[in-house]
Amino acid sequence: MKGRNAFYAQSGGVTAVINASACGVIETARKHPDKIGKVYAGLNGIVGALSEELVDTSLESDADIAMLRYTPAGAFGSCRLKLADPQVDSRGFERLIDVFKAHDIGYFFYNGGGDSADTCFKVSQLSTLMGYPVQAIHIPKTIDNDLPLTDNCPGFGSVAKYVAVSTLEASFDVRAMSKTSTRIFVFEVMGRHAGWIAAAGGLAADYGIPVVILFPEIEFNEAKFLERVDENVKRFGFCTIVVSEGCKYPNGKFIADQGARDVFGHAHLGGAAPILANMIRQKLGHPFHWAVANYLQRSARHLASAVDVQQAYELGSAAVELALQGRNSVMATIERISDDPYQYRIGTADLKDVANVEKYMPVSFISGDGFGITDDCRSYLRPLIQGEDYPQYINGMPRYITLKNRLVKQKLGPFSI
Amino acid sequence: MKGRNAFYAQSGGVTAVINASACGVIETARKHPDKIGKVYAGLNGIVGALSEELVDTSLESDADIAMLRYTPAGAFGSCRLKLADPQVDSRGFERLIDVFKAHDIGYFFYNGGGDSADTCFKVSQLSTLMGYPVQAIHIPKTIDNDLPLTDNCPGFGSVAKYVAVSTLEASFDVRAMSKTSTRIFVFEVMGRHAGWIAAAGGLAADYGIPVVILFPEIEFNEAKFLERVDENVKRFGFCTIVVSEGCKYPNGKFIADQGARDVFGHAHLGGAAPILANMIRQKLGHPFHWAVANYLQRSARHLASAVDVQQAYELGSAAVELALQGRNSVMATIERISDDPYQYRIGTADLKDVANVEKYMPVSFISGDGFGITDDCRSYLRPLIQGEDYPQYINGMPRYITLKNRLVKQKLGPFSI
Repeated sequence: MKGRNAFYAQSGGVTAVINASACGVIETARKHPDKIGKVYAGLNGIVGALSEELVDTSLESDADIAMLRYTPAGAFGSCRLKLADPQVDSRGFERLIDVFKAHDIGYFFYNGGGDSADTCFKVSQLSTLMGYPVQAIHIPKTIDNDLPLTDNCPGFGSVAKYVAVSTLEASFDVRAMSKTSTRIFVFEVMGRHAGWIAAAGGLAADYGIPVVILFPEIEFNEAKFLERVDENVKRFGFCTIVVSEGCKYPNGKFIADQGARDVFGHAHLGGAAPILANMIRQKLGHPFHWAVANYLQRSARHLASAVDVQQAYELGSAAVELALQGRNSVMATIERISDDPYQYRIGTADLKDVANVEKYMPVSFISGDGFGITDDCRSYLRPLIQGEDYPQYINGMPRYITLKNRLVKQKLGPFSI
Repeated sequence: MKGRNAFYAQSGGVTAVINASACGVIETARKHPDKIGKVYAGLNGIVGALSEELVDTSLESDADIAMLRYTPAGAFGSCRLKLADPQVDSRGFERLIDVFKAHDIGYFFYNGGGDSADTCFKVSQLSTLMGYPVQAIHIPKTIDNDLPLTDNCPGFGSVAKYVAVSTLEASFDVRAMSKTSTRIFVFEVMGRHAGWIAAAGGLAADYGIPVVILFPEIEFNEAKFLERVDENVKRFGFCTIVVSEGCKYPNGKFIADQGARDVFGHAHLGGAAPILANMIRQKLGHPFHWAVANYLQRSARHLASAVDVQQAYELGSAAVELALQGRNSVMATIERISDDPYQYRIGTADLKDVANVEKYMPVSFISGDGFGITDDCRSYLRPLIQGEDYPQYINGMPRYITLKNRLVKQKLGPFSI
């Protein structure tokens, strides 16, 4: 007997390892053809479910699916779309269930952050209410590392490794140039609300680099900041600043806010680095360079953390196993057992406890002066950047897969929200 | 009999592989103690010669010197300092010769770009005139790839690899996000006068990525640019733009020029990406992300090209061999024999022909519309990004060496320019 089909979708900002989770879902599902029929992937995330654009992953070879483990970004496309609250407008969720019903989909694997955990929870609830129960399992993914009830989130470890290594490398550069030219390097990294990514820059301090970190959790104090930077320049000859894009003035205004807005109306950040660099030049006179990593940091599969890749894969695989065990409305999680040696196990959290909760940096992870990380933070971060998991290279370029993404024949009429 | 000592200095912007050249110099010199005594390195480049701050590299272990091959940036420090024209003010060159004389230095290995080739040439000429002949050999280094008479310059291949890979990775990201959010990714790379680095972004086009390149060699035409970007978005759903920091308006003003100046009074570039991104948003309405790689690109030893590392090493080694052969006033060069299979040999160029000549992209390397690279350019670039040469990692971080850099006892009084 053939099992019911599964639907898998990628949500929100993609990462260097979200496809490793996709790989874990599809490879594990393929081992259970009696229980899971086909895995359909949403073309462009949940949009593909609403528009009935379902990628038939059974048409992709085992070899190509295996390549997902090494390929950054979202192989099926992702989206930034939050369905309307069903108590206000239930058409979106009803359409999802209609599409699931039309394609005999009994499993919903949703791979994303906080918003998608909420959607996943609602699908589980509403599908039951609507008489077509779907097992909804959430697979955590966010470079922001801000989901609750999991020790860490796939995607974060690789960004952390990228930021730690890049901070170290660029700091070696500034140090070499500091006698006659550049003395300041400002490195802007992602993290709108939580400073996890910026914190990773603090790992470069273990190599003799004077690093000043600006966290979103700490109100920006210009005078204190400039004083610390100048101290470092006087003592070491140079200073590296790692600034989170979400760093704010006491009045709540982002340093980086230049007025642009994204599709959700959120401030479109990016640009704290040049503002800080110019501030340092004007007030202290130090020559500077600055960089904004932006998408480079979250797509840098070439420098992914092996631990991160492995966990992303395992959580995708675990989601399928949980579904097969009859679980519903849960998120697969990482439970840390020990820091050193690093040990973890896969656990679960109820989606009702995950949705719409953001996990900030613990106060104990930020040093007293607000500009660095503590040993507790180092112990937390270090295991997550362990190991290299290089893609294959052909002619000097990494071999990344672009899937065929052939769509299943549509059965329903068009739909628009 | 012990040979005369050698002086080695790093000049200008450092790279991911300039230390590999240092490694080649020091390891090769160590094989000829009868002909070369100690290798002294200038602390912070030529500044160290003027201030008589000479690093005694003989105090570094073989193992640590070997690690230079894997360590980015300038292990002895570099500087941006051009000595005054000796016909106007000869004190700088006279001081150099005084320091060389005081420390029995008979070989001058200068590792840098066009300015340092000029200095190297003058040292060779003036030392002879002053009755203390020093053999001056130049080792090419510049990520800008703009030195004449060598097929390519060490440092460039690794930046090209970084830019090609990063363009590919970030483009996969934008492609995945393009249905509901980001459709434009603007990636700003180095290259003040020549578009070699930006050209490397064109290698991502081989993987189905629509890439628009803005070269310094091509006057920026806003209307044509926006038209091309919009065409790509309509056809592919997204567009990646790789812009050289040196890209200019027809009136000569840099897109990136925001008024800051470096220590030489050159425009302090960086910031073309946000300007272009906002231009696209205002005129075409497409949501964007942008990144400025800046120092990240030239310090990214974690992604160095194996060909580049090897050539950097060989040119350092060749400089010593040339000195031992009695050569003077020459630069070691790369002579390409064939593209595929890639073959090259080490050659030489007379420094009088190198100094102050900048090599731009050949017209035949830029596509007719000015926004891409030709097959000739691909054939040129591909061999230079071949191979990976990963550093060792410990606890998730690359193992990079910081040398002891112990200074030789000073014999002369202080000096100031």
